Amino acid sequence: MNNFNFCNPVNIVFGKNTISQLANLIPSDTKVMLCYGGGSIRKNGVYDQVISALSGKEHIEFSGIEPNPLFETCMQAVDIIKEENIGFLLGVGGGSVIDAVKFIAAASKCEGSAPWEILVNHGTNVSEAMPFGCVLTMPATGTEMNANSVISRKSSDEKLAFASSAVYPTFSILDPETTYSIPKNQLRNGIVDAFVHVVEQYITYDIETPLQDRQAEAILNTLVELADRVLAQNKDYNALAGYMWCTTQALNGTIACGAVGDWSTHMIGHELTAFWGLAHAESLAVVLPGVWKHQFENKKEKLAKFGERVWNLNHDTNDENAVLAIERTVEFFHSVGMPTSLADYNICKDDIAKVSDRFKQRNTIVGEHQNIGHKEVGEILTLCL
Amino acid sequence: MNNFNFCNPVNIVFGKNTISQLANLIPSDTKVMLCYGGGSIRKNGVYDQVISALSGKEHIEFSGIEPNPLFETCMQAVDIIKEENIGFLLGVGGGSVIDAVKFIAAASKCEGSAPWEILVNHGTNVSEAMPFGCVLTMPATGTEMNANSVISRKSSDEKLAFASSAVYPTFSILDPETTYSIPKNQLRNGIVDAFVHVVEQYITYDIETPLQDRQAEAILNTLVELADRVLAQNKDYNALAGYMWCTTQALNGTIACGAVGDWSTHMIGHELTAFWGLAHAESLAVVLPGVWKHQFENKKEKLAKFGERVWNLNHDTNDENAVLAIERTVEFFHSVGMPTSLADYNICKDDIAKVSDRFKQRNTIVGEHQNIGHKEVGEILTLCL
Repeated sequence: MNNFNFCNPVNIVFGKNTISQLANLIPSDTKVMLCYGGGSIRKNGVYDQVISALSGKEHIEFSGIEPNPLFETCMQAVDIIKEENIGFLLGVGGGSVIDAVKFIAAASKCEGSAPWEILVNHGTNVSEAMPFGCVLTMPATGTEMNANSVISRKSSDEKLAFASSAVYPTFSILDPETTYSIPKNQLRNGIVDAFVHVVEQYITYDIETPLQDRQAEAILNTLVELADRVLAQNKDYNALAGYMWCTTQALNGTIACGAVGDWSTHMIGHELTAFWGLAHAESLAVVLPGVWKHQFENKKEKLAKFGERVWNLNHDTNDENAVLAIERTVEFFHSVGMPTSLADYNICKDDIAKVSDRFKQRNTIVGEHQNIGHKEVGEILTLCL
Repeated sequence: MNNFNFCNPVNIVFGKNTISQLANLIPSDTKVMLCYGGGSIRKNGVYDQVISALSGKEHIEFSGIEPNPLFETCMQAVDIIKEENIGFLLGVGGGSVIDAVKFIAAASKCEGSAPWEILVNHGTNVSEAMPFGCVLTMPATGTEMNANSVISRKSSDEKLAFASSAVYPTFSILDPETTYSIPKNQLRNGIVDAFVHVVEQYITYDIETPLQDRQAEAILNTLVELADRVLAQNKDYNALAGYMWCTTQALNGTIACGAVGDWSTHMIGHELTAFWGLAHAESLAVVLPGVWKHQFENKKEKLAKFGERVWNLNHDTNDENAVLAIERTVEFFHSVGMPTSLADYNICKDDIAKVSDRFKQRNTIVGEHQNIGHKEVGEILTLCL
């Protein structure tokens, strides 16, 4: 096991009818900016619950945060924060809204350096951020209980991530009933997103982290067990609660403790979103099998363990179990309605160079062995056609 | 799943050669009291590492904290804190030292009400505590990453617990190399302690917490997998690191999220310690099988699941798997060298009334169904003879 630090101070408030607790969780002595997206919270009743809980607290609204939230949109919010003397942010929505709020929180305190530098430097230059809380309405990314954020910039077709302990939410409210109105394709995206978050932290190479491996498998097995009930969209509270908690636990730092992470699927997937607009989870489902096939020799021990413990494989050799584990994963993605090839998005062989060229320009090397550069990215995406 | 709140702000610093990080973790602007036990840290090199890291920081020492730490000892420390104007506590040792430091931290800020009331009220009256950090040298209780403490009072043969969010450690350093010199019986105690912590939060009744169930099984399976290597005492770093992290994860709040807890084994076991001096884990290993047999009908669904997923049982009925799960657990305790009956401690039938009388006096009712009072405590202990 590797040495590690773990400190996750987010106050999670989980369960039915918990949005009203905002009244106590939000500070009373400052002006609040309520941030949200395209208005789905106005249709499902969440907006009304939030406004009711904010009663008596000075607040303004900033709406229109888009999926794959844009730097340009966030900077509009930063301007308003400075004009309106805001002291606390409340993000209400899914991963995009919360990621945007994290960036807004950091950028609004970033005097002297250009806000885009936060992303170029992956957050290493962030020392302070405005405090903020969240009401999560779309389980998927885990951002409600971590210090990560991903922001896109329209002007340059870029999608970059940053992380800083300054952007842990003060609190996050998770009411599974807010998920009753989520469209099926977004439930599918959330299941795949959480699944890939886990395997990016688990399917690498063995340095003896038996508890963390089993904690990863716990999330994967639960996602697989609950997927049909979640996708049935019949207000199955316990299934949605279990699913929601899986998505949070998938990326709150616990399973990463002392283990080796990969994240090459995410890094390559971000470019598919930046160039062709795939949803985050769609990009992951396409890239993951390619990464696993390309890195088979390096990952086969963990793939075999995953095959045995998640897909109940019991063949004679690690190689057989590892090969089948990849197949079973692809079948699982298909079973929830998720495509797994570039062709499904009309991306063809000639497009691949666009992605690998970007890795070349940035001199980006990824993977747990730091062995995936622009050439290997091209080879991986060729396996994803 | 039940509603829940989860917030665990402890900064965990885990791994080899991490004690030197104390230099940065301890505040520089206040006088520190270093608290420890009977001097084992002087023999295994931990004391020297701590003193080296404290170099240049004003500090005094308070030693002699005993196993099952005494209220009377803690109050001596509180007097010194007031005389010496201490502003930060550092506990170096196992669960007893850290539990004592938690109580000292709370009692030293408890103006106006008697410190013993902290325990009588189980911490509900604690609003403030002195900040403190820990260096854990004995994995077992999980106290290094929670807000619980158990204190004994010699004058009345009582052992009582308290909990308060005011007594989360600021940081806890966990260096698995500090465990190399732990005596075998204390390694055995730690394995059983962590195992019972998990099952107290898991073997109750099903309210659909599939992720939490699997997270519990992850810890149990890892403890079972590592036990032999831990007990071999041959400086097997990865086995001890995995074991140490299991003991922390067993009681840091994660597996309790939204689930139903029992804790009757602990409540009854505390009395065996208070009256006859059994080590905490020894008391748990005696009481647990009795609680499970007595509450068999209420717990058999979860016992069967536990039997299938931890002991690989595969019989036709839940009843068979549940019965065998109890047997396998007892066998596991024996395999690590842990006795499981009152007779092993020369406690006989006539002694049982002493424990049940105390439940009667205090009008204590325990168990996840709140159905274990003094009469049932007597019945359970009769099953433990």
